[in-house]
Amino acid sequence: MYRVDLNSDLGESFGRYTLGMDEKVIPLISSANVACGYHASDPVVMDRTVSLARESGVRVGAHPGFPDLLGFGRRNMNVTFAEAKAYTLYQLGALSGFCRAKGVKLQHVKPHGALYNMAAKDYTLSAAICEGVKEFDPELIVLALSGGQLARAAADAGLPVALEVFADRAYEEDGTLVDRKKDGAMITDEEEAIRRVVRMVKEKKVRAVTGKDIPIEADSVCVHGDGDKALAFVGRIREAFEREGIQICSLDEMRRG
Amino acid sequence: MYRVDLNSDLGESFGRYTLGMDEKVIPLISSANVACGYHASDPVVMDRTVSLARESGVRVGAHPGFPDLLGFGRRNMNVTFAEAKAYTLYQLGALSGFCRAKGVKLQHVKPHGALYNMAAKDYTLSAAICEGVKEFDPELIVLALSGGQLARAAADAGLPVALEVFADRAYEEDGTLVDRKKDGAMITDEEEAIRRVVRMVKEKKVRAVTGKDIPIEADSVCVHGDGDKALAFVGRIREAFEREGIQICSLDEMRRG
Amino acid sequence: MYRVDLNSDLGESFGRYTLGMDEKVIPLISSANVACGYHASDPVVMDRTVSLARESGVRVGAHPGFPDLLGFGRRNMNVTFAEAKAYTLYQLGALSGFCRAKGVKLQHVKPHGALYNMAAKDYTLSAAICEGVKEFDPELIVLALSGGQLARAAADAGLPVALEVFADRAYEEDGTLVDRKKDGAMITDEEEAIRRVVRMVKEKKVRAVTGKDIPIEADSVCVHGDGDKALAFVGRIREAFEREGIQICSLDEMRRG
Amino acid sequence: MYRVDLNSDLGESFGRYTLGMDEKVIPLISSANVACGYHASDPVVMDRTVSLARESGVRVGAHPGFPDLLGFGRRNMNVTFAEAKAYTLYQLGALSGFCRAKGVKLQHVKPHGALYNMAAKDYTLSAAICEGVKEFDPELIVLALSGGQLARAAADAGLPVALEVFADRAYEEDGTLVDRKKDGAMITDEEEAIRRVVRMVKEKKVRAVTGKDIPIEADSVCVHGDGDKALAFVGRIREAFEREGIQICSLDEMRRG
Repeated sequence: MYRVDLNSDLGESFGRYTLGMDEKVIPLISSANVACGYHASDPVVMDRTVSLARESGVRVGAHPGFPDLLGFGRRNMNVTFAEAKAYTLYQLGALSGFCRAKGVKLQHVKPHGALYNMAAKDYTLSAAICEGVKEFDPELIVLALSGGQLARAAADAGLPVALEVFADRAYEEDGTLVDRKKDGAMITDEEEAIRRVVRMVKEKKVRAVTGKDIPIEADSVCVHGDGDKALAFVGRIREAFEREGIQICSLDEMRRG
Repeated sequence: MYRVDLNSDLGESFGRYTLGMDEKVIPLISSANVACGYHASDPVVMDRTVSLARESGVRVGAHPGFPDLLGFGRRNMNVTFAEAKAYTLYQLGALSGFCRAKGVKLQHVKPHGALYNMAAKDYTLSAAICEGVKEFDPELIVLALSGGQLARAAADAGLPVALEVFADRAYEEDGTLVDRKKDGAMITDEEEAIRRVVRMVKEKKVRAVTGKDIPIEADSVCVHGDGDKALAFVGRIREAFEREGIQICSLDEMRRG
Repeated sequence: MYRVDLNSDLGESFGRYTLGMDEKVIPLISSANVACGYHASDPVVMDRTVSLARESGVRVGAHPGFPDLLGFGRRNMNVTFAEAKAYTLYQLGALSGFCRAKGVKLQHVKPHGALYNMAAKDYTLSAAICEGVKEFDPELIVLALSGGQLARAAADAGLPVALEVFADRAYEEDGTLVDRKKDGAMITDEEEAIRRVVRMVKEKKVRAVTGKDIPIEADSVCVHGDGDKALAFVGRIREAFEREGIQICSLDEMRRG
Repeated sequence: MYRVDLNSDLGESFGRYTLGMDEKVIPLISSANVACGYHASDPVVMDRTVSLARESGVRVGAHPGFPDLLGFGRRNMNVTFAEAKAYTLYQLGALSGFCRAKGVKLQHVKPHGALYNMAAKDYTLSAAICEGVKEFDPELIVLALSGGQLARAAADAGLPVALEVFADRAYEEDGTLVDRKKDGAMITDEEEAIRRVVRMVKEKKVRAVTGKDIPIEADSVCVHGDGDKALAFVGRIREAFEREGIQICSLDEMRRG
C-alpha cells in the first residue's frame, strides 16, 4: 500500500482582502499550511482557518514566512541566524495560540515562499529555522523540499522530516528544482505531471530534465487551491491516486506508520 | 505579613530602536509585562526579553496591545469583539513561543495602553479579551485596573485576577482613575505617592480626589523603568515596602498563598 | 443644464491582493479617489492606478486614510491634530509623486472610511486635514459629505469644496446620514435610489427619513465598482442622468463653470 | 578654492522611538538625507525634520529605503525594477509633500542602507531608481557612491550627480569600498581618516587598501550624528576643512558653481 500526504497553503487572506478558495480545497487535502501573519493572514483569518481545518479533519501546520506582507513573502531577504530563528518561534507561537484555543494539535511546519526557497539552498538558514522549531516542539514535523538543505538540517537536528515534491516542476539531476527562469522548468502537461507524481510515490524515481532517472522521496505533494483550474487538477491527482492504489493520509498518520 | 507584586512594562524596543532600561529595572520588579510585537517589540527583542526575565527570576506576562506600532498602542481603535479576541490569542501565542523555547511559564496577561484603558471602561471589550485568554489558558492571571471592567469580566469568566494600582495617579470616588486631562490627576509628590501606595496595600484604602476615603484592592503596583528618575522612584518604593513590612512577590507566589 | 460628478474609490489592491474592478468602473466615472498606501494600495498599485485614470481621462484625487491596513482604514482611531495633518500631507505627497511622474494634475482629496466619517462629525479633525491640504496645494478641491464638518472646515480654510451625496443612504432632517445601525439607513430599492439622486441634483432636495423634504447640495455622487451588481447600478444611474439631462463632469470642469 | 558638501542621515525617529541627535548634527552639515517612512520615520517626524532643516538653512534630500522598518532598511531585498522605481517615486513624493508645505526645495536623493549598497553594485537597480527620480524631477541631484553603479546610471539618465566619499572606509584599487567583513575595511584612526578625506577633496586621490594611490571624486562626505563621539568627529572634520581652505557648501551651491 502506497501512501502520500497532500498539502496546500491556506489562510492567506488579510483584513479586507480575500485570497484563495480555502473552503473548496480543504476537503481535497490532508495537511494545511496555515499562514501566520508575516507574509499573509491576520489573527481573525488564522482563527477562521484553524477552525475550518478542524471541522474538515485536515491537519494543521505552520507556514512561516518573511516579514514582508507587501511582497507576500516572495522576496529574498538576507536575515541573520538570530532573526530567522526568532521569526520562526514568533510565528509558530502565534499560530499555536489558535490551535490551543481550539484543541488542535500542530502537526508540521513548512516555510513559505522565499524563505522556503532560500532554506532549500542554505544550510545555515535552515539550521536557524530548525533551532526555532526544535526549541518550540521537537515533535513538530518539518515539511521540506525533497533533497534540499532544510531536510538535511532538520534531520541533523533530530527533528522528524517529511519530504515534499512538486507535480508541476522539473528536477535537475542532483534532485534540485529546475530554476523557473529556465526553459522546461514547469511541467505544463497535466497528464505528464500526474504520471510523474505517481511514479515519484510508487517507484521513488523521477526523470530529471536531462533525461536521466534520479531517485526521489515523496512524503507529500504540494497542491494549490487558488483557482478553478488548480482545484480541478487536485481532483485529477486524487483520482489517479485512487486508481493507482495510493492512499492519501496526513503526515502524522504516515509517521505513526 | 503584607505582600504585593511590582510590575513593569518591558521589551518595548523594536529593530534598530531601543526603548527603556530593561536591564536596570528588571532586578527591581517581580513581574514583567512583555510586549508582543503589536504596539512594540519584535521577535528578536521578545527572545532577549524572555531570556532576561528568566535569568533574573522575574515572572513573565503578555502585554498585548493594538496593532498600532506607529502610535505605540496608545490610540483608541474601535475593534470588534472578534478582532479583540483574535488579537489577544495571536499575541499570547507569539510570546508563549519564546516562553516554551526557554522553559518559562507564562504567568499573566495585562493589556497595554489604549487597550488597557478602553478595557477598563468597556465590559464587552474586556469580555472579548478574556474569552481569548480563557481559551488559551484558563490559569493565566489577568492583571487589571483595580475596580475596572476588565477585572469584572475576568472574574465573570472564571479567570484568576490580580488588581493593579498606580502610585502616581489620583482616584475618583467610584474607584476609577481621574482623567489625565483634569487637574490633580497625577500625584507629583513622590513622598505622598509612596505613602498612598503603602496605605493601599496595608489598609486597602486610598483618599479619592474628593477627599473621601474609598476601599481599593492592590495586588500589584505598576512602576516604570524608562529613565533614571523612574528607576530611583522604584528604589524608593522598595525601601518603603521593606520599612513597612510589605514583601514584594510575584502574582503566582501570591496566588499560591 | 444640470451637472454632477461621479466619484469612486480606486486603486485599493495591495501586493498580492486584488480588490475592486478598476478597469470596469473607470470608464463610468468622472473622478477617481486613489488610495495612498495607508489603508490600502502600495506604490506599484498607485503607479498603475494613476496611469489607468490618465488613459481613461478620469480625474485623480487623493483618498487618504488612517494607517490601518489591517482594518482597511475603517476603524476609528483617535489621532491628534498634528498626526491627522501630517498623515494628510504624507499621503497627498506620495500620490502626487506618481501624478508628477505621469503629468497628471491632482484634482481633489477625499478622506477614506473612518477618517471620512469621523471628519464629517468632527470640526477639529477636519481642520487638521484641511490645514494639510492647504499647505500642500490651496487649489485642491476637498470632496466632503454634503452638510458635514469637513465641508465647513474646508470652506473656512478658503479651500474649494465639492459636496458629496449618496444614492443608497437615507438622510436625517439635519442633513446627516442615518446611522447604518438604524432601520431604514440604506435605500435598498434601486429605482428609488436613482429617483432620489436625480432629485438631489435637479431640485437640491431630498426626503429625510422622517418624511420631511430637506435642502441638499450634490456636486458629486459616490458610486462603487466592487462587484457586477454595483457596476450595473452605476450604468443605471448614468442612463437616468442622460434621460434627465444631467451631464456627468469632473469636479474641475464643474469648478471652471 | 576647494568645496565639499557634508551630508548626514536625519529624521530616523519613529513614533515613540527616538534615534539620532538631529538638533546637534544639523548645524554642522550642509545637506540632510531625510528618511521617508519606509526604513524609518513617520509623517510627524518628517514634518519636524523638514522644519528643522529649513530653520537651520540645511538643504533637504530624500533618503528612500526598502520597506523594512523592522530591519531599518539594512537587509537586502530582491525587488523588481517596477518595485524599485515605484518605491522611489512614493518616498520622493511623500517627502516632497512636507517640503511643499514648508516652501523647501528638494535638493537631492540618496538611497539608504541596503538599497544604497545594492544600487552601488547593481546597474539595473540603479537604473530603476533613476527612472523614478527623473520622472519625478530631472533636476534632483543623485547623491551616489563615488565610482559606483548608481553614479553611472544617474549620469546615463542625464540626472545631476554628486559623488559621495567616506572618511572612515578603506577603498579597493577599483574604487569600491572594502567589504566590511575584511580586515582593514574601517579607518579607525581619526587623524588618518581626516587626512584621507582632505586629500580626496584637494588632490582627488586616495590610497587604496593595496597601498596604491587611486583617483577619486569627492563632492560630499557622509558624516554621522548618532552619538557624542560621532558629533565630535564631525567637528574635527570641519576644523580640518577650515584649516585646509576647504569650504563646506551644499550640493545645490556647488552645482550652481
